[in-house]
Amino acid sequence: MKPIQVGLLGIGTVGSGTFNVLQRNQEEIRRRAGRGIEIAMVADLDTTRAKQVVGDAVKVVGDAREVIANPEIDVVVELIGGYGIAKALVLEAIAAGKHVVTANKALLAVHGTEIFKAAADKGVIVAYEAAVAGGIPIIKALREGLTANSIQWVAGIINGTTNFILSEMRDKGLDFDVVLKEAQRLGYAEADPTFDIEGVDAAHKVTLMSAIAFGIPVQFDKAYVEGITKLAGADIKYAEQLGYRIKLLGITKRTDKGVELRVHPSLIPAKRLIANVEGAMNAVVVNGDAVGTTLYYGKGAGSEPTASAVIADLVDIARLHGADPAYSVPALAFQSHTLAAAGHELPVLAMADVVTSYYLRIRVADEAGVLAKITTLLANAGISIDAVIQREADEVGGEGSTQTDLIILTHDTREGDMDKALAEIQALSTVLTPITRIRKEELN
Amino acid sequence: MKPIQVGLLGIGTVGSGTFNVLQRNQEEIRRRAGRGIEIAMVADLDTTRAKQVVGDAVKVVGDAREVIANPEIDVVVELIGGYGIAKALVLEAIAAGKHVVTANKALLAVHGTEIFKAAADKGVIVAYEAAVAGGIPIIKALREGLTANSIQWVAGIINGTTNFILSEMRDKGLDFDVVLKEAQRLGYAEADPTFDIEGVDAAHKVTLMSAIAFGIPVQFDKAYVEGITKLAGADIKYAEQLGYRIKLLGITKRTDKGVELRVHPSLIPAKRLIANVEGAMNAVVVNGDAVGTTLYYGKGAGSEPTASAVIADLVDIARLHGADPAYSVPALAFQSHTLAAAGHELPVLAMADVVTSYYLRIRVADEAGVLAKITTLLANAGISIDAVIQREADEVGGEGSTQTDLIILTHDTREGDMDKALAEIQALSTVLTPITRIRKEELN
Repeated sequence: MKPIQVGLLGIGTVGSGTFNVLQRNQEEIRRRAGRGIEIAMVADLDTTRAKQVVGDAVKVVGDAREVIANPEIDVVVELIGGYGIAKALVLEAIAAGKHVVTANKALLAVHGTEIFKAAADKGVIVAYEAAVAGGIPIIKALREGLTANSIQWVAGIINGTTNFILSEMRDKGLDFDVVLKEAQRLGYAEADPTFDIEGVDAAHKVTLMSAIAFGIPVQFDKAYVEGITKLAGADIKYAEQLGYRIKLLGITKRTDKGVELRVHPSLIPAKRLIANVEGAMNAVVVNGDAVGTTLYYGKGAGSEPTASAVIADLVDIARLHGADPAYSVPALAFQSHTLAAAGHELPVLAMADVVTSYYLRIRVADEAGVLAKITTLLANAGISIDAVIQREADEVGGEGSTQTDLIILTHDTREGDMDKALAEIQALSTVLTPITRIRKEELN
Repeated sequence: MKPIQVGLLGIGTVGSGTFNVLQRNQEEIRRRAGRGIEIAMVADLDTTRAKQVVGDAVKVVGDAREVIANPEIDVVVELIGGYGIAKALVLEAIAAGKHVVTANKALLAVHGTEIFKAAADKGVIVAYEAAVAGGIPIIKALREGLTANSIQWVAGIINGTTNFILSEMRDKGLDFDVVLKEAQRLGYAEADPTFDIEGVDAAHKVTLMSAIAFGIPVQFDKAYVEGITKLAGADIKYAEQLGYRIKLLGITKRTDKGVELRVHPSLIPAKRLIANVEGAMNAVVVNGDAVGTTLYYGKGAGSEPTASAVIADLVDIARLHGADPAYSVPALAFQSHTLAAAGHELPVLAMADVVTSYYLRIRVADEAGVLAKITTLLANAGISIDAVIQREADEVGGEGSTQTDLIILTHDTREGDMDKALAEIQALSTVLTPITRIRKEELN
């Protein structure tokens, strides 16, 4: 059978990885897929660089629409990124009857409903294993491996840049700003790192996982997003002393009232496997009612790890030859006509309605009665305390200091109730600086 | 579309889990699969117990062949186990044109070539996600998620009983026999635990993973199999002091000369994630040339975790409606006509040709010159030493002891060379008891 003809849109880091791996492993991939997979055409604005990557055997063009218009092309791989031209090209490729493979989490988290509907109407596949956690086959695990389960929750370290920064902060006892600069120097963080450090990239990814875990539409606009820029070295140290690590988690959870969808720094018990995921590595924990807790770990970014996911999607498409698209794996794991109703039954909860436990660090005047005042306010709000550490003032502020840190761990609390209690505590004259509040997840 | 009609052969632990999960999550599963999945018929020798599990709505028979002969049944799920009647029934189901789902690792590791050929000839699927690592979708990861890669090695904790025993030995400082009895009392080990503790069960599973990782036939007869029955508490303690944990690993590795296929206790650096997999949990590490190292973790046994894998296979079959079987996922991940040739190119290596590093514990007379003699014999055999610990005699044998333990870590060595050197060392009059030799894997 004729090899599948692939057109690449964009041949940067992931595109060249895809080309190189397909070349290097072509014989093994053909033995798996039952037919060859060939990159027949590449579109990139920088045609000179593109030609350096792919050589003379592959046609290189500057206009992506030439790839889409080519009737020989079976699958279009979109590696441009962003919401703009990428969206238009993906929709045009679908309209032209091409299958699409994309690593574009931002595009799918925001415009997925429109794109998947267009694909379903046209009977083509939009595959996106590379959009979440790089080379880890987590989309496959959620959409196919765990189909028996009522998924209860998913929690993942799904942004390598922030995990690298947090690992370095802990290992070297450094503050955020210092480590960010080092990460930029080493290439682990981009020149403009906003999407990573503010949690937006993780929120795109957890939005996709939420949809395929629970069978609801993608709803990025309803995600709660908080990054790691306000984390202090002190919090990482205190967490450590309490037996926890701080990680930026993307979390989505099924509750009686709806679905939680949130990205924020979280304390995790140090003994959990996921708490020991260091550096730029990714890991996703999935809890299903039948299977219990499972974990998936690997490289979440990089040229060849991401290419591994892109090519797995291409092999899947090759293997589906002749399959009835109405029955093959639905784009969002559940049959598309059932998504909207499920979205009404399982709405995404406002952050105020999320129930979790908390780590609080409160900088207070080192005076008698301060702890009593604070714990009374918490008790009045119905918030129950799990543990309290009061530091020696000298340890915190140096010799002769009149300030100290109160560290409080709470039991499960509605976030809205916590917000109110914290506003009252913050207003106390003996509370000297803005309170630090970090959510805590047991993940068991 | 009509629900898929499933016939269960055997309704013990996994069978009742499969029935219960399909009942409980039927609506979600239907939304995923595009059609319902119904257990229409159950065969079990104990029809009374079977009826208690499934109630009146499902037909229960004592003769499995009634299920296979029923033209309404689309898929036969074999949960009987073993090589005997299970093999005959699986082949009969295939001959009758039924797809087969099985959790029977022993059957597939030994008779897989015959069974998969029969299925390919008949155009039906034999799916076996439940045969390896219970609910962890590791077969799917290897056959589908990592298809871009030239897989380099796979190493897994794939037997929960032995991992539970090793965890308890380490935590409580107890010896093997004591913990085995406790494990039997708690239901983590069977009354006849031989298949687990001697490594046979793990060898069945790693044989399957080896085939689908490297595209070679299943070759259980060529696996090296060593269990945990000879492990002493002392080795676990010494390993700990050296920064290692001891785990029973199933390992398969691609080398220039062929494929390593082996099960034995192994020292692993304590900082690796897989070294921290405790109790009855399973984990598999897969290294591919593009993706790097990935890890998959979860429950490797139990009623509903295993049912999760069985049902995932059923959903896969439902979703393949209309697909050309010549192109859908091959049983052993690679197109079947390519397996035999690959098996010749990549033969399974004899254990003597495996290269790995070693932990040695040698009980010696506490005399001058003993260490020099032993290290000279190792050097003469071309074995290079990574670290040596000589214990104080008093610590090892109590006050006034004239015996002590030498602990030696070696660099990579051919097993055949190590065998020869150990025979010479064992023959020394100052070596007092049989030498303990445990292989060491870095897994990075």
